[in-house]
Amino acid sequence: ADVKKIAVIAGDGIGPEVVAEAEKVLKRTEELFGYQFETEHALFGGIAIDEKGTPLPEETLKVCQSADAVLLGAVGGPKWDNNSKELRPETGLLGIRKALGLFSNIRPAFIFDCLKEASTLKPEVLEGTDLIVVRELTGGIYFGEKFRRETANGQEAVDTCAYNVTEIERIARQAFEIAQTRRKKLASVDKANVLETSRLWRETVNRIAADYPDVELEHVLVDNCAMQLLRRPSSFDVIVTENMFGDILSDEAAMLTGSIGMLASASLGEGAFGLYEPVHGSAPDIAGQGISNPIATILSVALMFRLTFGYHEAADSIERAVKEVLDAGHRTGDIAVDKSTAIGTLAMGQLIVDAM
Amino acid sequence: ADVKKIAVIAGDGIGPEVVAEAEKVLKRTEELFGYQFETEHALFGGIAIDEKGTPLPEETLKVCQSADAVLLGAVGGPKWDNNSKELRPETGLLGIRKALGLFSNIRPAFIFDCLKEASTLKPEVLEGTDLIVVRELTGGIYFGEKFRRETANGQEAVDTCAYNVTEIERIARQAFEIAQTRRKKLASVDKANVLETSRLWRETVNRIAADYPDVELEHVLVDNCAMQLLRRPSSFDVIVTENMFGDILSDEAAMLTGSIGMLASASLGEGAFGLYEPVHGSAPDIAGQGISNPIATILSVALMFRLTFGYHEAADSIERAVKEVLDAGHRTGDIAVDKSTAIGTLAMGQLIVDAM
Ligand SMILES: CC(C)[C@H](C(=O)O)[C@@H](O)C(=O)O
Ligand SMILES: CC(C)[C@H](C(=O)O)[C@@H](O)C(=O)O
Repeated sequence: ADVKKIAVIAGDGIGPEVVAEAEKVLKRTEELFGYQFETEHALFGGIAIDEKGTPLPEETLKVCQSADAVLLGAVGGPKWDNNSKELRPETGLLGIRKALGLFSNIRPAFIFDCLKEASTLKPEVLEGTDLIVVRELTGGIYFGEKFRRETANGQEAVDTCAYNVTEIERIARQAFEIAQTRRKKLASVDKANVLETSRLWRETVNRIAADYPDVELEHVLVDNCAMQLLRRPSSFDVIVTENMFGDILSDEAAMLTGSIGMLASASLGEGAFGLYEPVHGSAPDIAGQGISNPIATILSVALMFRLTFGYHEAADSIERAVKEVLDAGHRTGDIAVDKSTAIGTLAMGQLIVDAM
Repeated sequence: ADVKKIAVIAGDGIGPEVVAEAEKVLKRTEELFGYQFETEHALFGGIAIDEKGTPLPEETLKVCQSADAVLLGAVGGPKWDNNSKELRPETGLLGIRKALGLFSNIRPAFIFDCLKEASTLKPEVLEGTDLIVVRELTGGIYFGEKFRRETANGQEAVDTCAYNVTEIERIARQAFEIAQTRRKKLASVDKANVLETSRLWRETVNRIAADYPDVELEHVLVDNCAMQLLRRPSSFDVIVTENMFGDILSDEAAMLTGSIGMLASASLGEGAFGLYEPVHGSAPDIAGQGISNPIATILSVALMFRLTFGYHEAADSIERAVKEVLDAGHRTGDIAVDKSTAIGTLAMGQLIVDAM
């Protein structure tokens, strides 16, 4: 039989709680659809620093490399915030992206009908918002040379932002291809009026565009995009941009939907392999209380089914189950209007498993 | 008598129209308060490219350097968008900031009571929003070395982001000092979990903070800030950040107030000298129709009075006049709910002059 190997990285904070519910969904999928999953747990982030002295142990990387996909909870927390660079969870995150060749981060942002009111934007502005931010994930200023030097004006710190044509081409193609499966609109975001990397970005995207004549391409300056996301969120379909801009804009886009506790993300490379994780963080303030919302992690499993395994029917089943449970009025604390009626992590997970 | 010299740069698009109304306000101030202004016009941006072959002619720089303050309309437009770098309006903008030592861009973002409904955010979320973004303006990736080179992966483009301690200190001090005149809260925005420049930024801001014990300092990561501006805009007082982040966040902040046609900005250096301009751009689509909103430019004059000349009474008079005219229901097209009742640029300017 075709056994799919999934590396499971619970991570820090609420990571373990929400991942546990997602694993129940995996189990239920095996029962309902006859698929087979083999999960292997690995240490990563803060807990790996504590137990192994490094955020990304060799062993963890091996587990991921021999898997078909990775399910990640969340990493980080104040405990490790003042560590030196090599001993910080974020360093592990950058390391795993690079080591696994995950050059593309896919962040869908859309409105859950029943959560429309949760946004700080007016419902009529949000109406119809359904976009995907495709963020370049292994290039740019995150990975360029960094150093300090002494100058006449005191210490100077330097970060280098670099992009080559190959890096831009592969992410651009992926974005065009995603747009082809959707409303066929692509917004490429850059700061071409100032940055050389952005000018190369824009030239390259324009050249690649010739291969996707059915996709309508617009170029948007990053500052303008930060505004347009607020003014006309529903007009965006797919947004493609470089690493740093993508970090900022994907979080802005997620927040404006009001559904940040519900959004999944995928980090992809050249093949079907992918790393899937909720958009929300490790929320150390509520960790261990059993009140966190497992939906984004459960929906990350659905995204894994779609993008890595092609198990669309199973993905549908999960997404339908989530919708059903929400429509029935069940809420965890983060999305409950009346907090006194909120249910816990376990209860929410069970309801979704039962509804599949 | 103390004659103040003001360099007036009308620029492109709607620039000349809105600047003309602001000049009427200058005249009216002379009559009402006995001040004396000497204005000198200079070419800058697209029009300077057309007439002088460069966005920032030597002559224009001289006019600015011999002035006490600069009033700028707006520059740029599609006509010059595909020019080579040296022949683009933006290059003039970066050049003038550097040449005049304007290392700090002050962008107040607040809600006009009568325009609350213009925002895409819910009024109850916006309630009380009144913040200032202090953006570093002559350092970082905008001004670092830029080049291309050939690699095995095709052409590579490189931008360099650098900050030294002196640059960070002076902008940090300015932000702390502004915070002291307000609600005494400063949010310093960086990406210290990834960037070396951000780590130096944070260290330096923390050190400077010791001199301002009355100001409450928080550090916010740039991606998180993009979210928090949407979630809790009214909780921010002063935000200080580096050039690129400031570009993005100040536009996001302006847009969320719904008052972008109304917001003024100041670019300052070491002394009282400053360059004042509306936050909105050159709006080439409506240029020459006499329908643009002159309020942001008129309020830029008020900001000039406050920050460069210390003419607080005259600034009050302008700001009160604007409020009075708006409260009386007068609107230009951009802010009118019922567009059929909108008045033009000239009429709005005259109403404000009359109300002073
Ligand atoms: C933790 C940090 C390094 C990371 C990033 O900026 O990439 C995070 O913000 C994210 O978006 O996944
Ligand atoms: C035109 C551009 C160079 C400029 C900038 O990014 O600084 C503009 O966006 C601004 O914010 O004044």
